[in-house]
Amino acid sequence: MKVTQALLSVSDKHGAVDFARELAALGIKLLSTGGTAKLLRDAGLPVTDVSDYTGFPEMLDGRVKTLHPKVHGGILGIRGNAEHAATMEKHGIPTIDLVVVNLYPFTQAIAKKDCTLEDAIENIDIGGPTMVRAAAKNHGNEKGGCAVVTEPADYAAIVAELKANGGAISYATRYALAKKAFVHTARYDGAIANWLTSLDADNKPTTFPERLQLAFDKADTMRYGENPHQQAAFYKEPNPVAGSIASYEQLQGKELSYNNIGDADAAWESVKAFDATTCVIVKHANPCGVAVGATAEEAYRRAFSTDPTSAFGGIIAFNCAIDKATAEAVSGQFAEVIIAPEITPDARAVFAAKQNLRVLVVPMGTTSGVFDFKRVGGGLLVQTADEARIVQSDLKIVTKRVPSEQEMRDLLFAWKVAKYVKSNAIVYCKDEMTVGVGAGQMSRVDSARIAAIKAENNKMTVKGSVVASDAFFPFRDGLDVLAQAGATAVIQPGGSVRDAEVIAAADEQNIAMVFTGFRHFRH
Amino acid sequence: MKVTQALLSVSDKHGAVDFARELAALGIKLLSTGGTAKLLRDAGLPVTDVSDYTGFPEMLDGRVKTLHPKVHGGILGIRGNAEHAATMEKHGIPTIDLVVVNLYPFTQAIAKKDCTLEDAIENIDIGGPTMVRAAAKNHGNEKGGCAVVTEPADYAAIVAELKANGGAISYATRYALAKKAFVHTARYDGAIANWLTSLDADNKPTTFPERLQLAFDKADTMRYGENPHQQAAFYKEPNPVAGSIASYEQLQGKELSYNNIGDADAAWESVKAFDATTCVIVKHANPCGVAVGATAEEAYRRAFSTDPTSAFGGIIAFNCAIDKATAEAVSGQFAEVIIAPEITPDARAVFAAKQNLRVLVVPMGTTSGVFDFKRVGGGLLVQTADEARIVQSDLKIVTKRVPSEQEMRDLLFAWKVAKYVKSNAIVYCKDEMTVGVGAGQMSRVDSARIAAIKAENNKMTVKGSVVASDAFFPFRDGLDVLAQAGATAVIQPGGSVRDAEVIAAADEQNIAMVFTGFRHFRH
Repeated sequence: MKVTQALLSVSDKHGAVDFARELAALGIKLLSTGGTAKLLRDAGLPVTDVSDYTGFPEMLDGRVKTLHPKVHGGILGIRGNAEHAATMEKHGIPTIDLVVVNLYPFTQAIAKKDCTLEDAIENIDIGGPTMVRAAAKNHGNEKGGCAVVTEPADYAAIVAELKANGGAISYATRYALAKKAFVHTARYDGAIANWLTSLDADNKPTTFPERLQLAFDKADTMRYGENPHQQAAFYKEPNPVAGSIASYEQLQGKELSYNNIGDADAAWESVKAFDATTCVIVKHANPCGVAVGATAEEAYRRAFSTDPTSAFGGIIAFNCAIDKATAEAVSGQFAEVIIAPEITPDARAVFAAKQNLRVLVVPMGTTSGVFDFKRVGGGLLVQTADEARIVQSDLKIVTKRVPSEQEMRDLLFAWKVAKYVKSNAIVYCKDEMTVGVGAGQMSRVDSARIAAIKAENNKMTVKGSVVASDAFFPFRDGLDVLAQAGATAVIQPGGSVRDAEVIAAADEQNIAMVFTGFRHFRH
Repeated sequence: MKVTQALLSVSDKHGAVDFARELAALGIKLLSTGGTAKLLRDAGLPVTDVSDYTGFPEMLDGRVKTLHPKVHGGILGIRGNAEHAATMEKHGIPTIDLVVVNLYPFTQAIAKKDCTLEDAIENIDIGGPTMVRAAAKNHGNEKGGCAVVTEPADYAAIVAELKANGGAISYATRYALAKKAFVHTARYDGAIANWLTSLDADNKPTTFPERLQLAFDKADTMRYGENPHQQAAFYKEPNPVAGSIASYEQLQGKELSYNNIGDADAAWESVKAFDATTCVIVKHANPCGVAVGATAEEAYRRAFSTDPTSAFGGIIAFNCAIDKATAEAVSGQFAEVIIAPEITPDARAVFAAKQNLRVLVVPMGTTSGVFDFKRVGGGLLVQTADEARIVQSDLKIVTKRVPSEQEMRDLLFAWKVAKYVKSNAIVYCKDEMTVGVGAGQMSRVDSARIAAIKAENNKMTVKGSVVASDAFFPFRDGLDVLAQAGATAVIQPGGSVRDAEVIAAADEQNIAMVFTGFRHFRH
C-alpha cells in the first residue's frame, strides 16, 4: 500500500525538512504540530496542522492535540480489514501511513541547570509516545500497516525504499521500525521512572532510584560464556563513556570471548591508572605483571618477568602507543588480547603475522560517575565506582622510619596495582615493577606468603621490595611475613583495632609504613 | 478538590468491584470500558461506557475508545488553571480525577503456549498506557490533579484517604502514585521491547534481545559499597526466584553490607549444590571450608577446620536446619552472617545472645533460567547461569587405576566445591570435606601449590586426598604438584592438547583420574 499521509512531530529536527520535502515530492500529505509544523512551513512545505485536521481546536496549551480518534483511528485501523476500512470511510478518517516522531530525551531535560520538578513533569510527552506506540502496534502485515520512524538516521533508507517501492514501505521495514519504536518508548519512560523514583522528600535526585531501569544494546553474541556450556552476549550502554573497554576497535584476530572482554576490562582500567609508560598483564581477572618502563617494550619485558607462567595466554594492555619493537617483544609470547590507545603502522604489520591474536585500540579516557554492578541470586548489588585516588601528601607515615624517596615512589606504584588485584591483595614491588602478586586469598597472611613464594619461583628478588596491602592487617602476622620475606616498606589503609601492634612490628623490623586512610577491596 | 469522576479499566480485576462500589458510594461517577465495565455493571454498579461518554461510537474493534479529547482533556486539564477550566467548560469536558488502569503483563501474554506474533502484538495496549501516563503527568499540585492507580494493593488506602479527606486525594498521594505509574509503563514497554528485539528471522524468541531492558526494585540503601568511599544499594528483581539470596529474611543482627550480600550469595548458592547435610564457609567470595556431616554441627566443625584463619569473619551457610548444638558451635567463632533454610527456636535463642550477628533464613529452591551479569567499562557481559551438573556415570575414567568408591564420592564432592571457587581453582578434599582450597590464581600450578601449603599450615592431611581442578591442566606440572602433595585421585574437565602427557603423569604416580568433559570457570 502506498503511503498517502504522514504525521511528523519531532524533537530532534536533524534532517526533518529534507525528509519532509522528499515525502511531499512523493505526493504524501504532511500532517504536523507545533514546532515541527512551523519548521516545515517555514521551509515552504505544504503542511496541515493536526488541529485543522481533526477540527478540534488547539486547547489546554496543546496537551491533547493528537489524542483524537481521527489521528489514532488513522494510525490504528487495520489495513486490509474491510470492516475497518468501511468504518473509517464513514467517519471520515483517512489512514495515516507514516508516523515520524521522536521524543525529547528526558535525561537532557533534567540535566538542565535549574530544572524544577514542574519543568521536568511539563517535559513529559503524552501525545508523542502514544502515536509512536500506536503506529508500532499497527505496523501491520503484508497487506499494509503504519510505519513509525523514531530515528533521523532512518530517513534516507525510508526515502530510498519509498522511491524504489512505488511509494510503499515494506512489511519487513515496518516491523523493524516497530521494534525500534518500542525500545524508544521503553527507554523514555525508563528515564522518567528512574528520575522520579530517585527524588528525595525535597525533590532532589539521589544516587539510587527506588525502581531502577537499565538499558543496554547488544554489541555481540558470543560463541559461549564463562564456560562453553553457557550462552553469552556482550552489551554496551546506549552512550558508553569514551575510554571504556566498550569503545574498543578490533584491528585483527579471533572473536573476543566472554572471558577476554572481562579480562580486557580489568587490564585496561588498571593500565589507565598510571601516568608513566606502563604495561599490565592480566590473567583470570588479576594483574600478574605490572611495570613502568622507559619504553613500552621495556615496560612489557619487566611486567612479563614478574610471572611468565601466568602471563601465558594473558591479556596485555599498554597506556601508550605500541611501536614495532614492543610488538615484536609481545609477539614472543602466547597472548589472548593486546590493548593500547595507539598502535603504530609498523607494529600493526608485526601483529598481522599472528592472525589469531586479538588486537584492540581503545581511546584513552577516564570512566567516572558510572555504576558498578554485582549480580547475586534474585538481585543486583549496585555501587558507585571505586574512584579514590591518593598522592604522596595524603599519606600518613606511622613508623619511626620514613620511606626513602625510592620506596615512596614504589609504594604509590604498588598501591595503584593493589587496587586492581582481587582481595585479599598483597603486592610486592620494586623499581616500579611488580615482584610478586598475592591475589584472591581468603586470608591476608596467606596472600602475603603466596606472593613471596611466587616471586621466589619466578626468581624475582623480594628482598628490598615494598608492599601494598589492599586492606589493613588485622594482626601483626601478615606484616611479619612481609618483613621475613625482606620487604622494607609497606603501604596499607590502617584502621585496624590492632594498628598499634602492627606498627610496633614494623618498627621492630625497621620497616617504613604509610597509611592511606582507605582500602581498595575488589572481589 | 473532590474526586467527581473516575475512569476504570483494569486487567488485574482483583478488588476492582469492591473498590468501585466504595467510589460509587462516595458519589463518584464511574466511567469504564470493555470487560471492566461489564464486571461493574454485573455487580449492580452505575457505570457509563466511555463510548457513550465521548459520543464517539465503538469502532475499529475498540482500538481507539479512550483516545479522545473528552477523556484526555478531562485527565490532562490543569486544575486551578482558569483558562483550562473555561475551555473545558466550553467544550463540555468534565474533569476525570481518578484513573484506575493496570496493564495485562506482556510477559504473561507471550508465555502462553502457541502465542503467535500476531497475538502478542494484538495484546499490546495503546489506550491504557496513554491514560496512565496522562494521569501521571497531570498528578498536579496542591490545587488538585488527577490520581492514577495502577496496583490493586493501593485501593484500600485510596478509599481510606477519600473518606478521611472529604472525597479528595492529596497531592502527596497523587505524586507517589504518579511515580508508580511511570514505572508501570516503563516496564510494560520494556517487556515488549525485550521480546520483540529477541525474535529471530522466524520470529522465534532467542536468548539475548538486541536491546535489553532490565528492571530492579531497591530493597535497601547501604551504608557503603565494597569500600567505605563507595555508595551502594541492593536491588531485587521484581519477581525474584524463590530460594535465591534476595528472598532472605533477616532474623537479627546488624544491617547487611554490600560485601555481606555478595558473600552470602556465594555461600548460599554453593551450599544448595549439596544433597547431604553440608556447611559452607565463605570469605572474600571464596569457599574457605566446605564439609558434609552427620549433623549440621559436625558439618560446621569439619568445614571450619579446613582453614580457621580464613573462617574468621566469614559467612556460614547450611543446607539444613540449624539446631541448638550447631548454633552453639557457630557462636564460638567470629562470623559476619549465618544462613540456613531453617533455624530452630532453641538455636534462635543461642544466636540472640550475639546481637550483632546477622542471621538469615532463606527458603530452599534452585535458581535456574536466570541471567548472570558481569560489569565492564561502558557495558555488561550477560550469560546464562552455569547450571552444568554431573553424576558418576557421566565421568570418563582416563587412567589405569580406577578411583575407589571412597575416592569417587570425594571426587564428586570436590568437583561441586570447585565450581564455587574462583578460577584457577584447585580443591583438595577427603571424606567429603575440603582439606585445602587454592583460589583465584593466575596459574594453575600456583593454585595447586597454594592449596597444599595452606592445608599444611592448617595441619590438614593432604596425603590420601583427592583433587578437583576447575579447568584442564595445560601441562603436567600441575598434576605433578598434586601427586607430590600426596593426592591419590583427580577430577578435571580434560580437553587439553597435552591430555596424554597429563594422563601419563597420573599413571606414573598411580593416580586415578576422571574427566568431566566440561569446566567450571568462575571469576
